[in-house]
Amino acid sequence: MSPPSAIHVLPETDTSTFTIPDRLTLETIAKRRAASGKLVAGIAAAADVEQLKGRSSHAHKPLAKSWEHRFTAESKGRTGSSLKQAAKFLKTPGLISLGGGLPSSEYFPFEEVGFKSPVPGGVLRVSGTDGDADGNENGGVPLQDVVAGKHDMAEGKSDFDITTAFQYGQGHGAVQLLRWMVEHTELVHDPPYRDWSCTMTVGSTSAFDMLLRMFTKPGDWVLSEEFTFPAAQETAAPMGVRFAGVGMDEHGIRAEALDEVLASWDVKARGGPKPFLLYTVPTGQNPTGATQPLARRRAVYAVAQKHDLLILEDEPYYFLQMPPYDPSSPSNTTTSTPPSHKTFLATLVPSYLSLDRDGRVCRLDSFSKVIAPGTRCGWLTAPAALCARYATHADLSTQGPSGATQLLLFKLLEDTWGHAGYLDWLLHIRAEYTARREAILAACARYLPPDLVTWTPPMAGMFQWLRVHHRLHPDFLKGEKAAEEIEEAIFLRNVEEGTLLMKGSWFRAEREDEVHEVFFRATFAAAPAGQIEEAIRRFGVAVRGVFGVRGGDEEVGR
Amino acid sequence: MSPPSAIHVLPETDTSTFTIPDRLTLETIAKRRAASGKLVAGIAAAADVEQLKGRSSHAHKPLAKSWEHRFTAESKGRTGSSLKQAAKFLKTPGLISLGGGLPSSEYFPFEEVGFKSPVPGGVLRVSGTDGDADGNENGGVPLQDVVAGKHDMAEGKSDFDITTAFQYGQGHGAVQLLRWMVEHTELVHDPPYRDWSCTMTVGSTSAFDMLLRMFTKPGDWVLSEEFTFPAAQETAAPMGVRFAGVGMDEHGIRAEALDEVLASWDVKARGGPKPFLLYTVPTGQNPTGATQPLARRRAVYAVAQKHDLLILEDEPYYFLQMPPYDPSSPSNTTTSTPPSHKTFLATLVPSYLSLDRDGRVCRLDSFSKVIAPGTRCGWLTAPAALCARYATHADLSTQGPSGATQLLLFKLLEDTWGHAGYLDWLLHIRAEYTARREAILAACARYLPPDLVTWTPPMAGMFQWLRVHHRLHPDFLKGEKAAEEIEEAIFLRNVEEGTLLMKGSWFRAEREDEVHEVFFRATFAAAPAGQIEEAIRRFGVAVRGVFGVRGGDEEVGR
Repeated sequence: MSPPSAIHVLPETDTSTFTIPDRLTLETIAKRRAASGKLVAGIAAAADVEQLKGRSSHAHKPLAKSWEHRFTAESKGRTGSSLKQAAKFLKTPGLISLGGGLPSSEYFPFEEVGFKSPVPGGVLRVSGTDGDADGNENGGVPLQDVVAGKHDMAEGKSDFDITTAFQYGQGHGAVQLLRWMVEHTELVHDPPYRDWSCTMTVGSTSAFDMLLRMFTKPGDWVLSEEFTFPAAQETAAPMGVRFAGVGMDEHGIRAEALDEVLASWDVKARGGPKPFLLYTVPTGQNPTGATQPLARRRAVYAVAQKHDLLILEDEPYYFLQMPPYDPSSPSNTTTSTPPSHKTFLATLVPSYLSLDRDGRVCRLDSFSKVIAPGTRCGWLTAPAALCARYATHADLSTQGPSGATQLLLFKLLEDTWGHAGYLDWLLHIRAEYTARREAILAACARYLPPDLVTWTPPMAGMFQWLRVHHRLHPDFLKGEKAAEEIEEAIFLRNVEEGTLLMKGSWFRAEREDEVHEVFFRATFAAAPAGQIEEAIRRFGVAVRGVFGVRGGDEEVGR
Repeated sequence: MSPPSAIHVLPETDTSTFTIPDRLTLETIAKRRAASGKLVAGIAAAADVEQLKGRSSHAHKPLAKSWEHRFTAESKGRTGSSLKQAAKFLKTPGLISLGGGLPSSEYFPFEEVGFKSPVPGGVLRVSGTDGDADGNENGGVPLQDVVAGKHDMAEGKSDFDITTAFQYGQGHGAVQLLRWMVEHTELVHDPPYRDWSCTMTVGSTSAFDMLLRMFTKPGDWVLSEEFTFPAAQETAAPMGVRFAGVGMDEHGIRAEALDEVLASWDVKARGGPKPFLLYTVPTGQNPTGATQPLARRRAVYAVAQKHDLLILEDEPYYFLQMPPYDPSSPSNTTTSTPPSHKTFLATLVPSYLSLDRDGRVCRLDSFSKVIAPGTRCGWLTAPAALCARYATHADLSTQGPSGATQLLLFKLLEDTWGHAGYLDWLLHIRAEYTARREAILAACARYLPPDLVTWTPPMAGMFQWLRVHHRLHPDFLKGEKAAEEIEEAIFLRNVEEGTLLMKGSWFRAEREDEVHEVFFRATFAAAPAGQIEEAIRRFGVAVRGVFGVRGGDEEVGR
């Protein structure tokens, strides 16, 4: 077990920083902003995340452990751009630079970029009502116009503009948007070690690809839930990196199973060293929908400490957490919406990042499920040394997220909504997904044969995981059909009935293993409530058809 | 030498394609579009580039050689997404899918996205004039409003919209924008082999990173110009891949030098196998500004055939080609602008892609220098099998360019400008850069000591490469100072004088080598004409200061 680093007190050179002894709140963000003055960050400005954090509030915390011994030769070989040696001279007063080959923004054929977006708070007030609106175009949600100009910074209109956003930038992204991410991270997670940092990603799939190149070599293994996000496994496989599945229950990955896999790791049998990376989706896991409760997270973190793991916390569904499901009283917008932002934040299951005294968590935040997948922009929170290596890697690969995306997100999250408005939006989304969950759960109860199909109501995310009790199939009992064949038969019969659900076996971390259990994954994100109900009805017909039981078209289980 | 593949005639199953026997033109693109009907491509639609090309026009061409034997284990191990197995069922009539975990576009907080952009053709008509405009905001360039809605496709308003662009997409990018790229590529380059294809990149730096992972392993070498783009070299170095510099002259990389490096390749001395990748910037090369004339390209291509090279043609500056420089009659917008699009295209030096009968060129196109770097969107043209591997790689890393970027580019290039309007824009940009080149060349002639500094007028791009004759320095003659020290002294003195130029030695492909020649790179892209003149004046002062010659502040060389 690796103990937390000793508490170092770094010399405070910046005494102007506003002092915040307590946890960050929406109010203290505003105070800190006021105290730190206007953000001035020009073209391709390097970010000083410590400054953005307001460092005095972290002074009492321990420093992160070092991961230096775990970086690959590739990552250690990243020395940064040689041309950046010239950057230090750019501050020379009166200097004319014919150095960097940047095109002039005069030649960017975008003079203004804008959009219409929901008014902060407006979404909540009207959500759940039906078109009682006053001529708005979005089913009653009031909209506002947001515009970014080419020279808004020079004209004092905004901290960010087309000239800067559409120019070359830094791998870590633009300071203007990164500041918002850093503050949001502190507001929600308040990491309990001192030198955490954030850096942007072009999405968590790309981030995982880059992290694997930073930490693994062919023959290595990564730990994950036994059912996991296939894209993660398929990102690793071509690099020669395999996934080792860890047993789960309805609360997600099991700490004891994790400990056992690690304690009994057989280097020879596995053909690779004992793994130190744990890839996990703790909230609304894909595909099982499982959300790890706090106690489970603490137990898993303790095992990570014991075996010195780095936890890759992939959290696209974190803010799609819902109230517990009560079939006798399904949630509605009113009952499922916390009365204040503070209450909302307090209801969220604490993240691994928020438990991370050691600096052994690398959290991946995503806008894909709460803003739009096409942003191709997210961020990573981890010890500063890890973020720095990541950003250096991004400098010479992705070069950071699209400037167009960064500008749209900045105008939405910073210039229009602010932190409070974003929390309103999350509450809106959360209420909508809760209503969809209630719809699928009601349909499952109504249409699925309870002896053949069982499920746990998801507490977060967009997936309903359905277990099919294949052992009750007559051909299985006679030894004539394996679990995998029954799964395939149901899958195909379901398509015949006009519904597509995903086969559970597609999500196995270790695909060579035999299929022991039959599962199907249904999402309640993509189809409207009426279609969800019909699809589940068809699935019920398909299951009964394959099992050869009666009642194919009837309602059951009321 | 690898001969071109035999000409295979593939069975033509699609007889509806409009038949175009001759090279594609703006007019035939319109006819082909009309014949192929409306483009219907929904969320994350897979692109059939053959269909986009209008395949009958390529039927007589040879097929590309195979690069299968060159792909790395990582690239060969990319089998694609397992969940995509389910995609074939999505076409089942009446199917309700609870399969893919896509968020509903109902929850994308962008109802409209729009921008103001120059009117096609308008830029040319007014460029070079000074604010004679009628109330426009962009110094006289007429602007128009462009808007994309959330449901434009369903409402029949456009082929692309927010619902599709901001959703998950394909690694190769959205068909809607990719079609434009494929047509543009055929219009400009008309690749002389049959099975070429295009796939989007998130910029050429990322593309180079991905291509290296597709083709190289630690210990390998890549060939490049002896002075090269440092980011390319620095992308390769952490992977253990080194750059082998090839001698250049004012016409860029020398074919004989390339042949010699390859013919004399010493595996033991180099510690790596004979390279097969040539990284080159053929037009307006960074840093030398050199543009390879057609004869040079033919000679280099022949050497590539002899040694079976794959040419990575990195062409951000391709459309910044300029008329020859005549100091007695500098170009202006009128003299430098070709009278028609056809003439414009005919004046461009043919690309390697346009000479590529074998399918041994992988061309990287970029919007960074002609639209904006912040788009983080470009495309790659290469044999279809190579593009397919690239796209599969992108599916599990970048996931393709930002949807916001793709939508903006689609609305600009396809829905607003069209191919002709884009050529107008390129003519505009070209005229502007030509004027800047004339400014820097006039300043060099006026302020630089002709015995100490010499240069070749660039024919393209944004860089002026200045050779300093360090052998004339008194301390070099006495053997007291090396070339590198003289370079450093000039660099620092230049900063003291208030100007930043880049040291040539920073651009060496092989950095361990001794510095034999002293160069500086000046860009004429970033500063306005007046500042360019002052910067060059200061550089002249700095050079004379370091050489200890008189006339520090005077004009020379008229």
